[in-house]
Amino acid sequence: MTHYAILPAVSKRLPFIEQIREGWQAKRSLLCVGLDPDLNRLPPRYRDGANRIEDGMLDFCRDIVDATADLVCAFKPQIAYFAALGLEDELEALIGHIHRAHPGVPVILDAKRNDIGATAKLYAREAFERYDADAVTVNPYLGSESVAPFLEFEGRGVIVLCRTSNPDSAWLQSYPDDEAPLYLRVARQAADWNQSGNVMLVAGATYPEELGRIRSVVGDMPLLVPGVGAQGGDLAAVLREGMDARGEGLIINASRAVLYADAEDAAAGARAAAGAFRDEIVRLQTELRPDRAVI
Amino acid sequence: MTHYAILPAVSKRLPFIEQIREGWQAKRSLLCVGLDPDLNRLPPRYRDGANRIEDGMLDFCRDIVDATADLVCAFKPQIAYFAALGLEDELEALIGHIHRAHPGVPVILDAKRNDIGATAKLYAREAFERYDADAVTVNPYLGSESVAPFLEFEGRGVIVLCRTSNPDSAWLQSYPDDEAPLYLRVARQAADWNQSGNVMLVAGATYPEELGRIRSVVGDMPLLVPGVGAQGGDLAAVLREGMDARGEGLIINASRAVLYADAEDAAAGARAAAGAFRDEIVRLQTELRPDRAVI
Repeated sequence: MTHYAILPAVSKRLPFIEQIREGWQAKRSLLCVGLDPDLNRLPPRYRDGANRIEDGMLDFCRDIVDATADLVCAFKPQIAYFAALGLEDELEALIGHIHRAHPGVPVILDAKRNDIGATAKLYAREAFERYDADAVTVNPYLGSESVAPFLEFEGRGVIVLCRTSNPDSAWLQSYPDDEAPLYLRVARQAADWNQSGNVMLVAGATYPEELGRIRSVVGDMPLLVPGVGAQGGDLAAVLREGMDARGEGLIINASRAVLYADAEDAAAGARAAAGAFRDEIVRLQTELRPDRAVI
Repeated sequence: MTHYAILPAVSKRLPFIEQIREGWQAKRSLLCVGLDPDLNRLPPRYRDGANRIEDGMLDFCRDIVDATADLVCAFKPQIAYFAALGLEDELEALIGHIHRAHPGVPVILDAKRNDIGATAKLYAREAFERYDADAVTVNPYLGSESVAPFLEFEGRGVIVLCRTSNPDSAWLQSYPDDEAPLYLRVARQAADWNQSGNVMLVAGATYPEELGRIRSVVGDMPLLVPGVGAQGGDLAAVLREGMDARGEGLIINASRAVLYADAEDAAAGARAAAGAFRDEIVRLQTELRPDRAVI
């Protein structure tokens, strides 16, 4: 494996936000494909065809990426799926493949990292130097100090958890009441952190009303929206509540519904599912904003 | 590197909480040494002596462990220091060394992981299966669902962030006011999660008053207390506010003040610093609770 005792320089690429806008406009796609390779759901040809199961996992992810890259505004590998199995090398290889084979498609490392300042800096280096991600998800529980080290990486995106898609999230994120829920405090603070236009928020598709309240607080800040597809979020409600003034502003993530659409031919199934998602989003954008300029 | 596509079974050891109590009582130590090996502060002999700097980092950590194991109730490696540099192998080797050379001294993996249920389960496997930690720190921002998968590992400890030691933490953790701050909501919830006696909380030494309020809510639940030593927390105030009914109940962490006590002879410096911490804690325990039964 590669060791980074002497760290590589951060790669020069277009800022994350510019890559995302290019995807929204030139490719007309608000779709992000989440790369959550579950060993238990790995299609048989990747499980049986590879000498090592690790290679099968990587081949599967690469095939999904190659089959959908022209349909998405970003890819989002979830680091836990790799780390639980010791697949750091494969995660590095996958992200390197995306950068080489699909330049212009940014990588969001879904890591939800957080710690006090000195340690947060190391997590930022893990995401941006070691894995060379264009953006990373972070958790705001420790406050500004824990987010600041991520903001220092010019052009890289910092996507702060705000209102997550899971049913339990209200317990803490909507505390103390509906008037002044914590998640809106986080949203306002994120707008303040956003001095360089590189801060974004996670707002789950499963709570479209909250998504709308977040949108009203953060102006045109992009929102990463998990929870459509397998988690059941309502796409029309997400777009109605979440779009920015230009009829964009959303990075809508689907993982399982794309990755496991077809166990026989995963690549073709993923392409069909991603294409259907992308097209349905475009249809809804046009329906909800008929005046929207289409490039 | 080792791959875990087929995961190892979880090792059988005494439950984390029993190992901790043994440390408190038989060794009379509430001290935890944090293993945060900063490449920039690595003593010259480890930097220059090793063929590979990675080996120097591991040797340094092992020497600290061997020099202090009889003085501590736990070790706490911070995963970011390893992950930023691609040192997963070295972290595995370090934890393996602690289990082999110092059985009965539990390992707390400081990872502050968090995600929705399915992904949190993978983080739990990362901590308890891959790294074979006895306990792990987790972030409560996503709610009960994100903590539950960690609780399923029998005997392993789950240490939930409550009130962290950094100055920015009040912004979110004390929201909305001093009457009903979020961190007390987390503390009450943790008491509810604690059906198997394996839940603990992080409460920073830098906020002893809050530590006291947490103690009043959670009964004799152990608290992991960072922030003494380099961060300047007041040890006497920590013990006064934080001890449980038996005059114990605290896992008091020191990292930098122990690791970098002596650049010439790191092991001897660490032993002297850890011994001084341990003895000062015992002195304060005795002073504050003169009636305390000493075993």
